[in-house]
Amino acid sequence: MRIAVYPGSFDPMTKGHLDIIERGSKMFDKLVVAILVNSSKTPCFTTLERMEMIEESVKHLDNVQVEHFEGLLVHYMEKNNYKYVLRGLRALADFENEFQMASMNKKLYPEIEVVILMTNIKYSFISSTLIREIIKFGGDLKDMVPELVYKKIDQKYGRVNDEDNSAVK
Amino acid sequence: MRIAVYPGSFDPMTKGHLDIIERGSKMFDKLVVAILVNSSKTPCFTTLERMEMIEESVKHLDNVQVEHFEGLLVHYMEKNNYKYVLRGLRALADFENEFQMASMNKKLYPEIEVVILMTNIKYSFISSTLIREIIKFGGDLKDMVPELVYKKIDQKYGRVNDEDNSAVK
Amino acid sequence: MRIAVYPGSFDPMTKGHLDIIERGSKMFDKLVVAILVNSSKTPCFTTLERMEMIEESVKHLDNVQVEHFEGLLVHYMEKNNYKYVLRGLRALADFENEFQMASMNKKLYPEIEVVILMTNIKYSFISSTLIREIIKFGGDLKDMVPELVYKKIDQKYGRVNDEDNSAVK
Amino acid sequence: MRIAVYPGSFDPMTKGHLDIIERGSKMFDKLVVAILVNSSKTPCFTTLERMEMIEESVKHLDNVQVEHFEGLLVHYMEKNNYKYVLRGLRALADFENEFQMASMNKKLYPEIEVVILMTNIKYSFISSTLIREIIKFGGDLKDMVPELVYKKIDQKYGRVNDEDNSAVK
Amino acid sequence: MRIAVYPGSFDPMTKGHLDIIERGSKMFDKLVVAILVNSSKTPCFTTLERMEMIEESVKHLDNVQVEHFEGLLVHYMEKNNYKYVLRGLRALADFENEFQMASMNKKLYPEIEVVILMTNIKYSFISSTLIREIIKFGGDLKDMVPELVYKKIDQKYGRVNDEDNSAVK
Amino acid sequence: MRIAVYPGSFDPMTKGHLDIIERGSKMFDKLVVAILVNSSKTPCFTTLERMEMIEESVKHLDNVQVEHFEGLLVHYMEKNNYKYVLRGLRALADFENEFQMASMNKKLYPEIEVVILMTNIKYSFISSTLIREIIKFGGDLKDMVPELVYKKIDQKYGRVNDEDNSAVK
Repeated sequence: MRIAVYPGSFDPMTKGHLDIIERGSKMFDKLVVAILVNSSKTPCFTTLERMEMIEESVKHLDNVQVEHFEGLLVHYMEKNNYKYVLRGLRALADFENEFQMASMNKKLYPEIEVVILMTNIKYSFISSTLIREIIKFGGDLKDMVPELVYKKIDQKYGRVNDEDNSAVK
Repeated sequence: MRIAVYPGSFDPMTKGHLDIIERGSKMFDKLVVAILVNSSKTPCFTTLERMEMIEESVKHLDNVQVEHFEGLLVHYMEKNNYKYVLRGLRALADFENEFQMASMNKKLYPEIEVVILMTNIKYSFISSTLIREIIKFGGDLKDMVPELVYKKIDQKYGRVNDEDNSAVK
Repeated sequence: MRIAVYPGSFDPMTKGHLDIIERGSKMFDKLVVAILVNSSKTPCFTTLERMEMIEESVKHLDNVQVEHFEGLLVHYMEKNNYKYVLRGLRALADFENEFQMASMNKKLYPEIEVVILMTNIKYSFISSTLIREIIKFGGDLKDMVPELVYKKIDQKYGRVNDEDNSAVK
Repeated sequence: MRIAVYPGSFDPMTKGHLDIIERGSKMFDKLVVAILVNSSKTPCFTTLERMEMIEESVKHLDNVQVEHFEGLLVHYMEKNNYKYVLRGLRALADFENEFQMASMNKKLYPEIEVVILMTNIKYSFISSTLIREIIKFGGDLKDMVPELVYKKIDQKYGRVNDEDNSAVK
Repeated sequence: MRIAVYPGSFDPMTKGHLDIIERGSKMFDKLVVAILVNSSKTPCFTTLERMEMIEESVKHLDNVQVEHFEGLLVHYMEKNNYKYVLRGLRALADFENEFQMASMNKKLYPEIEVVILMTNIKYSFISSTLIREIIKFGGDLKDMVPELVYKKIDQKYGRVNDEDNSAVK
Repeated sequence: MRIAVYPGSFDPMTKGHLDIIERGSKMFDKLVVAILVNSSKTPCFTTLERMEMIEESVKHLDNVQVEHFEGLLVHYMEKNNYKYVLRGLRALADFENEFQMASMNKKLYPEIEVVILMTNIKYSFISSTLIREIIKFGGDLKDMVPELVYKKIDQKYGRVNDEDNSAVK
């Protein structure tokens, strides 16, 4: 059985992430969405919230499960005997880092295989970083995050497109 | 009337910025230099100081005015009914981010149009980040910032090229 | 009056080109679409055909006119006293060349100003080169070229999506 | 059954290609190595020679078969009902083209899925273009092409590292 | 006498650094490894520790000496009348920054000459940043840092590949 | 004695080339400018003309000599026992190719060491390719090529900035 891990912060999950998950779940027998827990950063959403949002958003996909890990990806993968890492590439700028990381990971855990899918062009401008900016200042995220994440943001941070919260000159 | 916004931190304004402003002011009927106020960072110069330095440096240009905003650029533009964003591009590395930002902004405010001018090659190595480094350790900025900014730095941070303040082994 | 030149081979014109023309025509008082005639290459469409296709496709735009030139862009611009060059940027890879070309042109004709618009993300994968490949082997170009160009290709090269012409194993 | 196509000119096949084939064959149930036949170029090796060299080099891999095609990759894939394209990425420079090609292919054949593996770092400098240069002037290719290809080059083009054929000042 | 400076944080020194030092020491009559002391960051190793590790690792090289500096590199170089800066380039992503920095340094100290060597491909994935990550979570660094640095890490941070410290799911 | 080779087509030599030669000649005990003779291309200037132009332009530099070679650079270097290759880098786009070439050369001739200098920012837009374009259509090259090359172009191709030869609409 070919199992792939799709690692990330998912803070929050975007439509771009969901697209990669849906496509990846067809390519592999099982896909593990693995949330990286970084205890030195204060996330927008707790690990638990992120797990719930992803689980809810992928429940139409039989072979996808959600986990979380701390520390090095290679350790987490080795421990679970996972071999494939799935990555979505948005743009040229990402690629070099990706290559470096992949080479280093391969040194630490030679069995690893990094598999890259290209982000759908219509999601290629979406990044979690920019989304967190929009959450902070208010702005309509409807086309950028899955339905469920959209509601969750609304719940936690107030109306995401509330005009009165928006930036002023 | 075609109005363009030239957004940035301008902390401080460089000769590269001034060059873009001069060229942009010819292309558009009016050019608004818009200082991004980021309350979570401690700037080298206060918003007021930055406004004054820019206003002073552009007073030979009739159709340029200086404003400031907080939050998302698109909100600020939408509120003021501005449509054109002017950007100066220094190098390859900037471009990808620029493209992503522009695409996201277009999603949030479809009327926006990002217009790019290429930085004059003789200013292409100047960045505010590097200038803040030089201010911190001392170093001659004469060729990198407008006359007026040069004086202001001198006033606020002591003689910018004072040998005695400079780094030692 | 601000006049911009949008130079290119337009062999053939794509939806990406048309998008830049429409947006550019709003930014400038007049926009000249300037077809580069390269006598050492055999084009897919003659200069005349290209002129007609563009003229037909832009007839809803009052301030756009179509011209052609041979040789260096800067000479053509200087002779006509044109100052602004409009360029659409598709991707990172283009940028470096663009920068080099712009710097060289500025050396030869200091009055020139290169103005860049970012290609709409939905057209960012379209290039005339790839389109000529598809014309050669057959393939459906409906979403990639303007209606009129589509018909012209059909006329000149047979049914563009004719299954029987398509590649075989 | 998940079938992937690994397309290329393979003129000639390198150790980098073979590495991607071996890794790809583990990821998919079947892997088709598809030689692009470009009738307008004179290859170093005929299609037949290339097929034989690849077939010989992959005979230890049960689920790999070699085919060839002319024209557009998407047509070839659609006709054979293939969905996955496997690509090996060597470097940043390749990526942008890859992305553009993938987006265009997806427009022409929406079912297509491009899967990227990163070239092993020790093969990342090898390109068929450079190898053809070395074949032309003589030079030792032992570490760059599979054993069998090495012999074939020797046979067809004389001793590949023959000092007497080498460049002179 | 041609003297080159090889500046960096070296926190810690990697096999890639050592490789550049060895190659650089052959190119120049004398090579100064110059540790940048950044008082606003908490390093993994103190300046003294870093000096010792480098000195120990380069003691087979007669013409290499280790120094440290604070502030701007150009000031440090000017004060010591050093003219050549040696840099190792790992990848495309580094290059643009390098170019900008070099141009700015040349403005501040026109006598400076930046000399670049390409990182050996087998070390091209190693970065001090990634190594600090591995130190933090545990992981085997044997192939990435010189023997002596390896021992030092072990001493200071416990067994570097201690399974019990490693990441858990 | 440290000898470096500066290889290129030099068709024709530019001010950028001359700048690299002058800086390189200070770094090494001897610098060999090595003209690559490519018999499958028709150059603008013959090998002899190129040799003469370079020799004339570098006669103020004691330790520079001009040679030419055909075939692979590594063979030429190995035969002459040369170890250092000097390269001038203009831009990001060049770098990746440079890296690949360097890695392949190192494989073929492990003693080789590629040394890179960054092109002076004021020459960074100059390329021989663009200069050949300007020669073809006419255009003033005064700031781009050495005095002597300027005269040679004038002699061979008529007045380089002759208005009457220039492009027409």
